[in-house]
Amino acid sequence: MRTEISEMFGIDLPLFAFSHCRDVVAAVTNAGGLGVLGAVAYSPQRLEEELRWIDDHVGGRPYGVDVLVPGKIDASAEEAAAGGGLGRMLAAVPQEHWDFLGGLLERYGVPLPDFERARASAETGAGGSVTRQGAGELIDVALNHPIRLIASALGPPPAVMVEKARAAGVAVAALVGTVEHARRQVAAGVDLIVAQGGEAGGHTGEISTMVLVPEVVDAVAPLPVLAAGGIATGRQLAASLALGAAGVWCGSVWLTTEEAETPPAVKRKMLAATSRDTVRSRSRTGKPARQLRSAWTDEWDGPGSPGALPMPLQMIVAEGAMRQIGKAAETGNEGAQALANYFVGQVVGQMNQVKPARQVVYDMIEDFAAALDRLNTITAG
Amino acid sequence: MRTEISEMFGIDLPLFAFSHCRDVVAAVTNAGGLGVLGAVAYSPQRLEEELRWIDDHVGGRPYGVDVLVPGKIDASAEEAAAGGGLGRMLAAVPQEHWDFLGGLLERYGVPLPDFERARASAETGAGGSVTRQGAGELIDVALNHPIRLIASALGPPPAVMVEKARAAGVAVAALVGTVEHARRQVAAGVDLIVAQGGEAGGHTGEISTMVLVPEVVDAVAPLPVLAAGGIATGRQLAASLALGAAGVWCGSVWLTTEEAETPPAVKRKMLAATSRDTVRSRSRTGKPARQLRSAWTDEWDGPGSPGALPMPLQMIVAEGAMRQIGKAAETGNEGAQALANYFVGQVVGQMNQVKPARQVVYDMIEDFAAALDRLNTITAG
Repeated sequence: MRTEISEMFGIDLPLFAFSHCRDVVAAVTNAGGLGVLGAVAYSPQRLEEELRWIDDHVGGRPYGVDVLVPGKIDASAEEAAAGGGLGRMLAAVPQEHWDFLGGLLERYGVPLPDFERARASAETGAGGSVTRQGAGELIDVALNHPIRLIASALGPPPAVMVEKARAAGVAVAALVGTVEHARRQVAAGVDLIVAQGGEAGGHTGEISTMVLVPEVVDAVAPLPVLAAGGIATGRQLAASLALGAAGVWCGSVWLTTEEAETPPAVKRKMLAATSRDTVRSRSRTGKPARQLRSAWTDEWDGPGSPGALPMPLQMIVAEGAMRQIGKAAETGNEGAQALANYFVGQVVGQMNQVKPARQVVYDMIEDFAAALDRLNTITAG
Repeated sequence: MRTEISEMFGIDLPLFAFSHCRDVVAAVTNAGGLGVLGAVAYSPQRLEEELRWIDDHVGGRPYGVDVLVPGKIDASAEEAAAGGGLGRMLAAVPQEHWDFLGGLLERYGVPLPDFERARASAETGAGGSVTRQGAGELIDVALNHPIRLIASALGPPPAVMVEKARAAGVAVAALVGTVEHARRQVAAGVDLIVAQGGEAGGHTGEISTMVLVPEVVDAVAPLPVLAAGGIATGRQLAASLALGAAGVWCGSVWLTTEEAETPPAVKRKMLAATSRDTVRSRSRTGKPARQLRSAWTDEWDGPGSPGALPMPLQMIVAEGAMRQIGKAAETGNEGAQALANYFVGQVVGQMNQVKPARQVVYDMIEDFAAALDRLNTITAG
């Protein structure tokens, strides 16, 4: 398959695989696509290790890194982080939210997380790196590796990221959910737009892939566009190319692969889930993100809730608790199993079988060929 | 183009056009697709006139009728209608809702509708026909014409509709928003499933077309499936066929055609709207329906609202007011223009030009051919 994208990156298949798991990244890159490591959950040290591992396993084939640089984040959190005071960032979380969280875990019979542990997690984890400063460190680490793509998941990449990437000969991609955002990304100097529909997992807007992709393609031409959201099979890949995309960006489909580090309780939920079992909720990060609907989203979005805090404060509240919930879920704690969830798109309904990531790619190619044959039969008729 | 659908109906183009406007229905049927008249707003007498007009204008080419048979409707409304007491149906609307509506119109400077007029509209309009009894009369009228398709917009068609249609040699279609509903429709005996994504205008679920269509195709095979929601161009038609659909069902795209009877103020809003300017709201019918976001949806879905009533009671509340709002909007009343809205999908962002319906069809064919050429170039590369 040849699109602008395959030329641009020297790949056989215009398939980009977003994953937090290095094994998935390497497997897809080695199968002819381009794996993109989601770096948001990593400290700079940990990211360095992950990328070294990937370098050792892809034999020079192209891969990328995705960082989350929020356009707007809570000012108090930004200040606290800039002042080096992650303790102050924790202090910016109202007591009401800790109380709601404590009551929630108690009602579901999940042991309360240790506050010191929450603090430690904030210092090393995602809450901390979702600031401009945190993201900047990750970008520097990434650009020290032979990556071919760096992506910004939220909002236009800062000018410094574009400059550094350009100097390193690395393409910059950005995820968008509206035409307006796409135009802003073009102005910021990105090389590649990922148009992500509201059916996608993680942070999304509300416009569907079917509507968004052709709109964005027209708005940013001749810049290439990847379609994201609702894509897990070759039929959906074919549909995306028909819409004018130069390739696809898939995230959810890797979560139930053999390689994925998805917690077992969540993986089981995903395998059983239908396309109706996701919800767009602010309860994990502070921004609307599609995820498995669970007792966690129901409770935070329900009547007794104080409401989610802005990003990244809600991440600080949610992360420690989610780790605790995950651990308890694995011991068979039913309340924890009811609460457990993770970001995933509506394609979760099509994810019914654990397969190696490579097999997902091969199945997609086969299904794509069948879809194209079908299309050509229709029009030849 | 040849799919199961073109064989089934003897049409050149697997394109179904849902419209409340007979001119659009005839234009699309005459251009090689299949026009489907939305009958919900009509009395049996009016439907008879409309179908007679269509018969006179399509020269025997195939067309269809869509009725709205709700699966669940408010019991008190059903009883009231069954007892012949449309006055009693009006009485089932709580005073709180009339008060909210009155206050709303007053705040926006729209003259209050005359209560007797509201009653008359309930007796002849949509509120009345959205009961099993009302729908039954429309079905009988429709089957007395040479229609080729009868569609049920909400919930499985009643057994009597399927039996009568079968006896008349008319195919039965049903709109669904989930796989579960599709299975129920198959069990009810329909011949054709319309899988409608959440980006569609009117009553919709939340699963997007990109995700829903392949799921439904797999679930109901070998029954043919039409894709609906997010389809206004040939690229989207090509994408739908790639997803496994046998054709497409489009509604929104006709609303800004020359033929459409869309009120001018609403048409102007649609031409100016982007894909972000719709919302799924219960404020017009009592069931979630995607429509232009306007002061009407904001106010009914906002904090001071008593909330929408169940279908069809909310329709009774909304219809008279909407007629009044429409009239006032045409005289330049700014409050009325702010409130005015109508059902439309996210493709409203792509509807930027008034064209004849026939031209929409021709543009779609041309765009489809270009999309297919592109796809074949990609894979030949």
